[in-house]
Amino acid sequence: MKRALAAALAAIVAAAPAVAQTAGAVPTLSAQQQQTVDRLIDTGLEDGLAWELVESLTTEIGPRLGGSPAEARARDWGVRKLKALGFKNVRIETYEMPYWERVHEAAEIVAPFPQSLAVTALGRSVATPEGGLTAEVVRFRTQLDLEAAPQTGLEGKIVFVDESMARTQDGSGYGTAVRKRSQAAVEAGKRGAAAVLIRSAGTDSHRNPHTGGGLRGEGETAVPAAALSNPDADQLARALERANGPVTVRLDIQVRTEQSVTSGNVIGEIPGQTDELIVIGGHLDSWDLGTGAVDDGAGIAVTTAAAKLVGDLRGKPKRTIRVVMWGAEEVGIYGGKAYAEAHKDEIDRHVIAAESDFGAGRVYQFDTRFGDEALPRADVMEAALRRLAIGPGNNAAFGGADIGPIRALGVPVVSLRQDGSDYFDLHHTPDDTLDKIDPAALRQNVAAWAAFIYMASEMDGGFRE
Amino acid sequence: MKRALAAALAAIVAAAPAVAQTAGAVPTLSAQQQQTVDRLIDTGLEDGLAWELVESLTTEIGPRLGGSPAEARARDWGVRKLKALGFKNVRIETYEMPYWERVHEAAEIVAPFPQSLAVTALGRSVATPEGGLTAEVVRFRTQLDLEAAPQTGLEGKIVFVDESMARTQDGSGYGTAVRKRSQAAVEAGKRGAAAVLIRSAGTDSHRNPHTGGGLRGEGETAVPAAALSNPDADQLARALERANGPVTVRLDIQVRTEQSVTSGNVIGEIPGQTDELIVIGGHLDSWDLGTGAVDDGAGIAVTTAAAKLVGDLRGKPKRTIRVVMWGAEEVGIYGGKAYAEAHKDEIDRHVIAAESDFGAGRVYQFDTRFGDEALPRADVMEAALRRLAIGPGNNAAFGGADIGPIRALGVPVVSLRQDGSDYFDLHHTPDDTLDKIDPAALRQNVAAWAAFIYMASEMDGGFRE
Repeated sequence: MKRALAAALAAIVAAAPAVAQTAGAVPTLSAQQQQTVDRLIDTGLEDGLAWELVESLTTEIGPRLGGSPAEARARDWGVRKLKALGFKNVRIETYEMPYWERVHEAAEIVAPFPQSLAVTALGRSVATPEGGLTAEVVRFRTQLDLEAAPQTGLEGKIVFVDESMARTQDGSGYGTAVRKRSQAAVEAGKRGAAAVLIRSAGTDSHRNPHTGGGLRGEGETAVPAAALSNPDADQLARALERANGPVTVRLDIQVRTEQSVTSGNVIGEIPGQTDELIVIGGHLDSWDLGTGAVDDGAGIAVTTAAAKLVGDLRGKPKRTIRVVMWGAEEVGIYGGKAYAEAHKDEIDRHVIAAESDFGAGRVYQFDTRFGDEALPRADVMEAALRRLAIGPGNNAAFGGADIGPIRALGVPVVSLRQDGSDYFDLHHTPDDTLDKIDPAALRQNVAAWAAFIYMASEMDGGFRE
Repeated sequence: MKRALAAALAAIVAAAPAVAQTAGAVPTLSAQQQQTVDRLIDTGLEDGLAWELVESLTTEIGPRLGGSPAEARARDWGVRKLKALGFKNVRIETYEMPYWERVHEAAEIVAPFPQSLAVTALGRSVATPEGGLTAEVVRFRTQLDLEAAPQTGLEGKIVFVDESMARTQDGSGYGTAVRKRSQAAVEAGKRGAAAVLIRSAGTDSHRNPHTGGGLRGEGETAVPAAALSNPDADQLARALERANGPVTVRLDIQVRTEQSVTSGNVIGEIPGQTDELIVIGGHLDSWDLGTGAVDDGAGIAVTTAAAKLVGDLRGKPKRTIRVVMWGAEEVGIYGGKAYAEAHKDEIDRHVIAAESDFGAGRVYQFDTRFGDEALPRADVMEAALRRLAIGPGNNAAFGGADIGPIRALGVPVVSLRQDGSDYFDLHHTPDDTLDKIDPAALRQNVAAWAAFIYMASEMDGGFRE
């Protein structure tokens, strides 16, 4: 159901007992609250803290793969920054996780047109034999074509899934791309293939392949899986077209794994007048190839800076604002899962949650996942955000990967949807660096988040029912 | 002197004896020639041969470093293609040259912010000790700042020349960039530095550093030299800014060299009615990082396809059209120098020469380097090209690196100047791949070159005097 419609229905239901109900039943901001929202937006649009934070994180830590020593340094960075900014109860909540890192990766067309290919291993890929494996390439136009292929005929081959990804504002092309990235190795492995190469889940035209989480199959059917950059996938497709016979490729992937390492979520709070919680944040880890500026240094920076603005208001907020710098998201949402497990007994205190994890583009839409009766509160928030050119959304908010586990426990979530037109040019590549962030767009995010956090804290009533 | 002015003066001089002179003294195209030019342009704008050639070269050969086995395969490719297209006297003119190739390259910030940096060795760089060298970084804002620095104080340091390059249509930012690329190691070496890092001579924001020819100093003062991508140069500059003390970098460059290998120019001709020669072409070699699509597969493709169109006209051209696929340009213009040496005794037969070596962007300007009295012929050519949106140029044409040596022997040259706004995003990087070529712009080049070649062949009189 579209939220506008649901809200209209909820309003009618609420209005039905009519005269008996107080005016307070239709939520609204007080004049003073509205003033504060506007002041937060004004201040956010000029605030340099988010930029300072993302510059510091990406420069001083750089890449910070989940479970790595660099991610541990990032946690220390997070603790230092949150303390310096005046957050309270600053701490690291640790958890254990399996570790995977790339050691070496290379690919080349061996025959008939010898040349190297730009390739990167997908996360958790198994290794090839040392020195690599060489095999004939079989191309599939799409992941669905591979899934529809017979169970025999691919034994010992390198399966090449050449499916391309559509560029969209809302990132809707990513779902199909993730299916390919996560399932290609599984389907190839079932059919006895030697390895799988996919066209990167990305929209750019640079020789920087996109990594990302992939399933690899298990046991006997686990196969090495890697992504080619878009120009390299073009090249391999052309080679197949032009060859008078088989095209053979050598793929060499070496990885290092550990059964268990320690990672953690960094947490800091602005204590409220009640123990009700608003949970916001971004993820602290990044893929190893870039410096994690848009994914997700920006989210860390925006939510921290926005919470700081609300914390700087006179008096305590009504609810406690908890900033979580989530750990190890990219490699399996370990931080999000650990948080839900550790906090499940106090899940009712979690009034609302939201994550910023879709780059650094402007927020253009406000989505919620509220109980129907709370939908009028979404409309109030939406109206307050409209001067930032943020439009109405739906009530099917995703919320963010790290809050998925608490969303599953019933915590209402919102999404401040960002323009992701160029997000998948950068995502999971070496090109995810600070220069890709537009400082003005970053400030618009801070303004929107500050306004949202403040309203979520101060509005009467919750968002569940 | 601007060409228009020079031409005007030449015309006045020519006109001075007035009545005594024949009308033929002011060059012009006959009605039939004008018709042929227009037909060549029409055909060129629809001709798919250039695309077919550059697709074939970049796919079937790919990267083809001067002196490498891949360049030898490219020569065989060139011979096959020229013969198949009906060119005559197809041959390879060989020469010997020193060889250099990269074997391994890596760089990382060691302290205080450990992380890897995207780096590529400059051509002919010497190697570091195995395993690399680690040293403190000293930054210079520009190459001029380095050149102005005292001769002491840099001993054992890694000199970082952080000069950025301006994006321009005509590539005018490249001169400054080349000074940095070629001189940084020399100046650093003189001062006892351990190595030199430059910000790439490029205008893009991707983590693909630009290689290119560099001087390295000689003997005692030869130092390893490498380029950082623009985002990595930004990062190193920020690290220097944020560190409370020295920033140390490890640089590891391993190379392989050979004293002498065989390379060659591939030559094919459309025989004319006379032994006067029009020499056109592009260079067949490329840097090793990309597949050499815009540098210079496009030039090979455009000039070959354009010559073929002229060869397809009824009857022999007046002058012989010689297509040269120059070898080993990037690594030292070995092909161009060898050609001039081999053909110096017949240099007078060379009526005019031109190279296409500035990418695949549209031609927007026609430059010449003619004798003053031949300038009216430039105006005729210019006028004929105008329907392709090509405007008037100057009489200081560069002509192209490979024809520099015969230009120095007095051969008149022209430049069909191409829009290079994005050329230095791609140039000498892994991103120089086929997808970067706009087929429509490529065809506009073919049309312009076909018209130029035809006019150069058929016009009365030469371009020297």
